[in-house]
Amino acid sequence: MTNPTSAMIVIGDEILSGRTRDSNMHHLAQELTKVGIDLKEVRMVSDDPHAIEGAVRALSAAYTHVFTSGGIGPTHDDITADCVARAFGRAIAVRDDARAILQAHYDRMGTELNEARLRMARIPEGAKLIDNPVSAAPGFIIENVHVMAGVPTVFETMVASVLPTLVGGKPLLSQSLRVFRGEGDIAGPLGELATDFPDLSIGSYPFQKDGVYGAQIVIRGQDGTQVDAAMTRLCAVFGE
Amino acid sequence: MTNPTSAMIVIGDEILSGRTRDSNMHHLAQELTKVGIDLKEVRMVSDDPHAIEGAVRALSAAYTHVFTSGGIGPTHDDITADCVARAFGRAIAVRDDARAILQAHYDRMGTELNEARLRMARIPEGAKLIDNPVSAAPGFIIENVHVMAGVPTVFETMVASVLPTLVGGKPLLSQSLRVFRGEGDIAGPLGELATDFPDLSIGSYPFQKDGVYGAQIVIRGQDGTQVDAAMTRLCAVFGE
Repeated sequence: MTNPTSAMIVIGDEILSGRTRDSNMHHLAQELTKVGIDLKEVRMVSDDPHAIEGAVRALSAAYTHVFTSGGIGPTHDDITADCVARAFGRAIAVRDDARAILQAHYDRMGTELNEARLRMARIPEGAKLIDNPVSAAPGFIIENVHVMAGVPTVFETMVASVLPTLVGGKPLLSQSLRVFRGEGDIAGPLGELATDFPDLSIGSYPFQKDGVYGAQIVIRGQDGTQVDAAMTRLCAVFGE
Repeated sequence: MTNPTSAMIVIGDEILSGRTRDSNMHHLAQELTKVGIDLKEVRMVSDDPHAIEGAVRALSAAYTHVFTSGGIGPTHDDITADCVARAFGRAIAVRDDARAILQAHYDRMGTELNEARLRMARIPEGAKLIDNPVSAAPGFIIENVHVMAGVPTVFETMVASVLPTLVGGKPLLSQSLRVFRGEGDIAGPLGELATDFPDLSIGSYPFQKDGVYGAQIVIRGQDGTQVDAAMTRLCAVFGE
């Protein structure tokens, strides 16, 4: 059985200009790995309608699930909802259930639900809302695309509420071994191991710190018995 | 004058599985902003030949410069050089100048230049080498694609040697103001400001920390006089 595939779109000029360091990609990658959904591709695009629409269309067609991060707030540069609606040829307007969620939230806070805040109730036709217990403004799901906030605390909460609703695959198991030799010495035996275990992914990640160098060898796969067997052989070759 | 555009490809299963948190994208984004080259798109792809080739072809055709990170080491999972060669229909083989660089490096270290290490001297036909003062194995430039290492220290050194050779644009200037109000209150005036200064990019980045909330408003543009004028108006509206 192969795992469901997925892709992510990180939206925002602030990421591409280097002003903000994205953390949502790394968080989602870890969470997807736990539930056995393979993250195959990530695209980071600017606040540009064509870039966002193009990425949504391309990735939605290519993968089982797509997750987006960013651009669903109340300000003029928050254009993700409109772009996603356009990518699927759907109308978009303020929706009553989303408005009610915002109204209740701002009533509680004694804040006015003004025109700008109401933008966050604009939801593409036929979309399903994603709960936002942090700051109320919902994300939404349309076709296979999950549209979520860019603020990390909100993004992470939305991921937590979305992932249990998706059918995962077998979680990827991994084992690793630190080998204190240069990658050039490891490469030969490692290549043979990779050939003998074609269902496993075997990676070598060099490190160099405080005068010590070597590589972290990581063996990943869905079949625990195979991962064990490969690790046993790896230890026989490189273990002390 | 518009700035040169660019894209980045981050290559590696370890990034997409969440095992490793990429830092090269954020570093490159900051460096490109300094020299006035706009980073328009980033793609993170797995160690899959089709994914790498496809991204190289698509981004090379769409942007002035492309930068890649990862997959040029000595182990079996380092397939970037081959994929880039294939993307451009070029032959790839061990090249004498690259071999000489490695030979000198390993001689100095008293290490054998074995078959695995020699893989790092495989360079696509017609490519120009990128110097690697950290660990010798060179990157390379083919057409408009700069192929660099994934290890952050090496990547950063390669970026430092490559960027001065590229024609940059006007560096993006930015000024920012922290406003301690909800984005929903800021959105209206901010949208008007964005309309009145169409050449500037005006972003709003909400924060919420230790019970205090608000948004960081960032005004970016190439024309310092315009950035100043917009910031003066912003302060008149939101400054204390």
